[in-house]
Amino acid sequence: MMEDTLGYLGPAGTFTEEAALKYFNGKEEITLKEYSAIDQVVEAIGKKEIGSGLVPLENSLEGSVNLTLDLLAEYRDIYINREIIYSISHCLLASNGVDFATIEELYSHPQVFSQCRGFISEKMPEVKKIPCYSTAAAAALVSGENNKAAVASRRAAELSGLKVLASNLEDNNDNRTRFVVISTRDHSCTGADKTSLVISIKDGPGSLYNVLGVFARRNINLTRIESRPARKNLGDYLFFIDFEGHREESWAGEALEELKQHVVYCKMLGSYPQGKLIS
Amino acid sequence: MMEDTLGYLGPAGTFTEEAALKYFNGKEEITLKEYSAIDQVVEAIGKKEIGSGLVPLENSLEGSVNLTLDLLAEYRDIYINREIIYSISHCLLASNGVDFATIEELYSHPQVFSQCRGFISEKMPEVKKIPCYSTAAAAALVSGENNKAAVASRRAAELSGLKVLASNLEDNNDNRTRFVVISTRDHSCTGADKTSLVISIKDGPGSLYNVLGVFARRNINLTRIESRPARKNLGDYLFFIDFEGHREESWAGEALEELKQHVVYCKMLGSYPQGKLIS
Repeated sequence: MMEDTLGYLGPAGTFTEEAALKYFNGKEEITLKEYSAIDQVVEAIGKKEIGSGLVPLENSLEGSVNLTLDLLAEYRDIYINREIIYSISHCLLASNGVDFATIEELYSHPQVFSQCRGFISEKMPEVKKIPCYSTAAAAALVSGENNKAAVASRRAAELSGLKVLASNLEDNNDNRTRFVVISTRDHSCTGADKTSLVISIKDGPGSLYNVLGVFARRNINLTRIESRPARKNLGDYLFFIDFEGHREESWAGEALEELKQHVVYCKMLGSYPQGKLIS
Repeated sequence: MMEDTLGYLGPAGTFTEEAALKYFNGKEEITLKEYSAIDQVVEAIGKKEIGSGLVPLENSLEGSVNLTLDLLAEYRDIYINREIIYSISHCLLASNGVDFATIEELYSHPQVFSQCRGFISEKMPEVKKIPCYSTAAAAALVSGENNKAAVASRRAAELSGLKVLASNLEDNNDNRTRFVVISTRDHSCTGADKTSLVISIKDGPGSLYNVLGVFARRNINLTRIESRPARKNLGDYLFFIDFEGHREESWAGEALEELKQHVVYCKMLGSYPQGKLIS
């Protein structure tokens, strides 16, 4: 029961819930459980309330992903089990009977207004934009209203009983968010995997260069690197590194062994299948 | 007039405004102008409505800084002129006459609740947490209310006529945000500077290693590196790199020349004095 429950960053109707539903739809018997903050999802896994959690890692619209990075670095026994690359489509939602021409107020997350700037300035230049805490909250606010619309997910339309007046409002159609499924264990080797780890190195010229040499000499492709200030000591940095391969593959294991000579601290965040784009 | 106007990510009472006031207080005659989104600040500089803008770059509580990175990469003729490292203090605010013991509802940004988890769970475990779009909005909502409080900046207390019941609510006292002043030009050399640039490299093992070699061989210290998916082509990445030094210093100029052999694209984001921590 608990094992089959997936916690996610809510509320229902956000793109995180939409991504969870699309990804698991028809695949597995999963119960979704909503949490209001990323750290609550992580804590719930620790307390075994839920078997796994879905949280945004990169480029999310619904909250800071720095928090996800910090939690992954901080919590023991929390690993990345899967990644989900989700292509987001913003929809214009309104109550039944509302005509496009009569919309006076538009509700959404401020970043969504920015992402849909072309559509809004061209098609609804006179409309008043009302910033909301989440796209799901925006959808709930316009439900039953006459001259109001929201920019939110298709799923939010279902939940709030709204109709979709227009879709793909975003200026850039390649609008993706990378989510990760986190759990107390990572994924077994599939042959097309990625591995994430967080390291801390001594501050100084060449430190990171030496670390990357470990991967470069083995032709290991890094797919992401990001530095974040370590929260404990001034001037210290953590580096989040993703590379192609599974930690159980022999060459990856050798690289990770050699890596230890160049770092102050290293935490394995897990190996997992490379995510395909879903939309 | 225009030159003396600094645009910032509002609303008034956010930590961005507080940082702007503290930094410029008594130093220069600056008029502040509020904008509701980071891209509006950047556009206003392009249209010469304002001479410069203050926007969060790292670890902000008030919105995604990925947007700042993308805008810096995208817009021509926008440079970093200064950086400001601001230590944030969260305060418990309520209307006059409200007693700590009678508080039933607590308003703030969800990330702020997370950052003040220790204080809230220990001192106000029964309180109902209401998520808001910004800390400034939270402060405005509790103004004139009897059993409500907000977690926001000291500046928000002034603007909303609230009193400060407690300060430094955050679990981690080293809670910093890095802001940058952006403008149509960067800063002249002071001898203790930083330089930011964004590069794009060919995807493949060793690409980033070769780039970092340019800096490592000259003992240039990198203070930050971050990869971001390039928005145009799948699989391509941009790298944001900060290093110690000014682009006009001869060794830095040589490094930047050599760098061009290893990158597909390079945009100078500017050199500016290394920021000191203010609080």
